[in-house]
Amino acid sequence: MSARDERKQQTRQTLLDATLKLMQEGRGFVSVSLREVTREAGVVPTAFYRHFRDMDELGLALVDDVSLSLRKMLREERVKAKGAGHIALQSSVMMFLLYVRQESQKFEFLVRERMGGSPKVREAVQREIRHFVTDLANDFRLFPEMQNLPSDDLEMIADLVINTAINWSGEILALASDQVRLQYELSMRAVKQLRLIFVGARHWKVTEAAGVMGTAA
Amino acid sequence: MSARDERKQQTRQTLLDATLKLMQEGRGFVSVSLREVTREAGVVPTAFYRHFRDMDELGLALVDDVSLSLRKMLREERVKAKGAGHIALQSSVMMFLLYVRQESQKFEFLVRERMGGSPKVREAVQREIRHFVTDLANDFRLFPEMQNLPSDDLEMIADLVINTAINWSGEILALASDQVRLQYELSMRAVKQLRLIFVGARHWKVTEAAGVMGTAA
Repeated sequence: MSARDERKQQTRQTLLDATLKLMQEGRGFVSVSLREVTREAGVVPTAFYRHFRDMDELGLALVDDVSLSLRKMLREERVKAKGAGHIALQSSVMMFLLYVRQESQKFEFLVRERMGGSPKVREAVQREIRHFVTDLANDFRLFPEMQNLPSDDLEMIADLVINTAINWSGEILALASDQVRLQYELSMRAVKQLRLIFVGARHWKVTEAAGVMGTAA
Repeated sequence: MSARDERKQQTRQTLLDATLKLMQEGRGFVSVSLREVTREAGVVPTAFYRHFRDMDELGLALVDDVSLSLRKMLREERVKAKGAGHIALQSSVMMFLLYVRQESQKFEFLVRERMGGSPKVREAVQREIRHFVTDLANDFRLFPEMQNLPSDDLEMIADLVINTAINWSGEILALASDQVRLQYELSMRAVKQLRLIFVGARHWKVTEAAGVMGTAA
């Protein structure tokens, strides 16, 4: 990369980081203006247009950026899981929650903009989440208990896992860093929920037709 | 109620409705100003202060309003379920999703502000969600399969159900009203996810200690 390209890349990253920083206090992406971003990044507004056509394009770049680093983390976990021959639920959940706190700005962005005010950004976030679901459903095929389930059901289970993990993210981000007890309780509940889903998957029968739960005492 | 009280109540409701309306296009609660709300409601700004100290207080009133109508719906469902001696998963899920679409403004508010920018409103939403979880955990005690589980585990399962239902809400609200096929697929997946959770609950063992899933092929 030439020095000029490198500088250009750097400015781009500065604009992305500035946006995440401005959103830190809970502001939605749509409420952040182009002018604010350039001011925070310390560049003139015209410099913005050398990188992005408008704020929506910057938003899409943010989605890419965030999901890229998330995917990288998941890939590393996957390699470890294959090496060990199993998913160690407890350590995976702990690792995930630590990662959420470490990359809190990125996760806040994902969790909030999934339901956010920019239709383009929202669709991009939801598309990335669907990719995570498909990847996880593929991973499930490696497990003897699950490999005989139809793709539809694997996707349905993966969707439940991913959405549950996004909920934990939202909850852990809402806790202050000194609320150690609550963080611990949340992670214990998270481990149990993941375990419950896998118990359900193990006993899942494709033909399970009843759709009726229990008889009141 | 005197005519004066009634008028007062009416203005209050107009202010709440105006806020929801302004938020319809995906705007976060924090981005809506007091002035906009009074303009939309057709009242002078001073009239606002007869009802609420500030926008945060209006936000808390909105949370109450929204959860009140949600709780009412859940209570009716609960009475029906007790009468029938079971929860008919399919019809409950369908009914819930129809209700979400019918009350879309209220649900958009809940789903978005759960992660939103006003800490007070966010906390209030999360508190209401915890109430729903506790109510549902109590209901679970009526089912023979579940009544022997410790309270902790019932809460953990209820939390999974409620959060999953909130996810469906967000997804169904993102679909246009003519995307009938996608709405149908979403509801089918929702029924399966709920069933999977209950299959997991039925086979849940308190002592299930392994926390390890599968052995890679």
